[in-house]
Amino acid sequence: MLKLPKKVTVKEVGPRDGLQNEKERVATEDKIAWIDSLSETGVSYIEVSSFVHPKWIPQLADAAEVLKTIKRRKGVTYAALVPNIRGLDRALEVDVDEVSIFMSASEGHNRSNINKSIEETYPILGEVVKEAKQAGKRVRGYVSTVIACPYDGPVSPSKVRTVADQLFSMGIDELSLGETIGVAVPTQVEQLLDELLLHFDSEKLAMHFHDTRGTALANIVKSLEMGITIFDSSLGGLGGCPYAKGASGNVATDDLVYMLHELGIETGIDFQSLMKSGQLIETALGKQLKSRQMDILRAEGRGEYLE
Amino acid sequence: MLKLPKKVTVKEVGPRDGLQNEKERVATEDKIAWIDSLSETGVSYIEVSSFVHPKWIPQLADAAEVLKTIKRRKGVTYAALVPNIRGLDRALEVDVDEVSIFMSASEGHNRSNINKSIEETYPILGEVVKEAKQAGKRVRGYVSTVIACPYDGPVSPSKVRTVADQLFSMGIDELSLGETIGVAVPTQVEQLLDELLLHFDSEKLAMHFHDTRGTALANIVKSLEMGITIFDSSLGGLGGCPYAKGASGNVATDDLVYMLHELGIETGIDFQSLMKSGQLIETALGKQLKSRQMDILRAEGRGEYLE
Repeated sequence: MLKLPKKVTVKEVGPRDGLQNEKERVATEDKIAWIDSLSETGVSYIEVSSFVHPKWIPQLADAAEVLKTIKRRKGVTYAALVPNIRGLDRALEVDVDEVSIFMSASEGHNRSNINKSIEETYPILGEVVKEAKQAGKRVRGYVSTVIACPYDGPVSPSKVRTVADQLFSMGIDELSLGETIGVAVPTQVEQLLDELLLHFDSEKLAMHFHDTRGTALANIVKSLEMGITIFDSSLGGLGGCPYAKGASGNVATDDLVYMLHELGIETGIDFQSLMKSGQLIETALGKQLKSRQMDILRAEGRGEYLE
Repeated sequence: MLKLPKKVTVKEVGPRDGLQNEKERVATEDKIAWIDSLSETGVSYIEVSSFVHPKWIPQLADAAEVLKTIKRRKGVTYAALVPNIRGLDRALEVDVDEVSIFMSASEGHNRSNINKSIEETYPILGEVVKEAKQAGKRVRGYVSTVIACPYDGPVSPSKVRTVADQLFSMGIDELSLGETIGVAVPTQVEQLLDELLLHFDSEKLAMHFHDTRGTALANIVKSLEMGITIFDSSLGGLGGCPYAKGASGNVATDDLVYMLHELGIETGIDFQSLMKSGQLIETALGKQLKSRQMDILRAEGRGEYLE
């Protein structure tokens, strides 16, 4: 019989990873209303925005305003991405609950995304982790391109392990493994986790899948079987794929939660509230979200999600 | 380590299961051109049409014409659905290679689809199997609603086993297990196959998943792990879901073949030829197909699939 965990933490990254990849701009008040509605779904973690310089991600230039204005619900962690000390300072000013730092397991993607080599990136992130911990914040690390890189091709599990070692040595609390381009299949996930679980506790690892080729849920089932209990996702699959415009990006929170519940796994999330929240951001964005559950909702014209 | 078969047979059901669920009519010559292009992809089995009365499925009223005109490539099985003796006779007249009979594991769906109870259906199908075998044809059985029924709700593995027993006693060569409404998750697939594999050889069972909720590939990985080596799919996810218009139906052949190849499993299918064939039916249909691979193809505007 399939051995699966009883409980899973779903981390909603749509307000950051989703919106940063949508060319349509969403008004600050719409973001705030959406994040407030997400807080009502039972989700326990929301990555709210990014303190990357607005020059790079203009969609998230209102990070401080959003973090200042959202209603913070007890039991929900409101996190933000920070690229460096300057970003951290801006995040701390608005009292973010947790910060995320990021880099890639492959040189090509790290250079393209951060404009630095992997070696050059470590000291910058080390400084951020140190200061964030001094400020009493939890720190999450992201490592991108854990299976393959759009520039360098396949990435070996040992490369991912090297980066993971460095980030955990800095003092991060959790590492999210990003399958950035959505090419992975379960055998590759198994090889990666076989390597990482020799060295790191499963409860410190999260999986961050993109569903570009429809394999995300299969990869998540494999991860569950290997003991992973934290998954990142984006409501409605918001954001799409930066490497193939029009294709799917982050695995959709609604598709993931449907599957987890049917597998008998608790998430603490109310599915109907989640779909209502999906309709809210779909309306704000003015275009159809690509998740299967949003498709079904539109197809059936079901009224039960609507207030 | 994941134990997976080395080879898998992908059965293309798009010309039948796909087209019968599209409201857009495809011209007979376009169907023929599409089936001929499918024959060039390396696929070894194509369900070409259905000899159900045209009153019920007008989209496939040209079944005889299609079967008479397509180029039959050596090594490819050209099959058709037959509901009864009259349909069988029409299929034999055009020398179909194999016939498929069908019924449901649930009373509600069987009644809705065939207008008979399950008990009333057996003798009709028994007669078809007997005559088809006398004519020297292989017979495939379909059992629908193997996990859940849109009318009756959950369907137990023992109900499916009862129908499977009856169909195998009639002399069918293979049984395709249809997850008609696309709600299943891997634990349910495991429970179903745990029951069926006690009684039937894995090489006589095929899985027929719908991807309505994005779980088809996860269910296929679980089926592969349990020894199943035959999967039905529809190129580009053609057909959609008859129970939620606009939602996804059959798992897409292109998404399935991508995953199988990445898992290191042989299919004999050339992926580039498959995508070209997808573009051909997309053009004939005049609307975008919903598979992830067709999305990527459009997104990247990749020229390599185009002649």
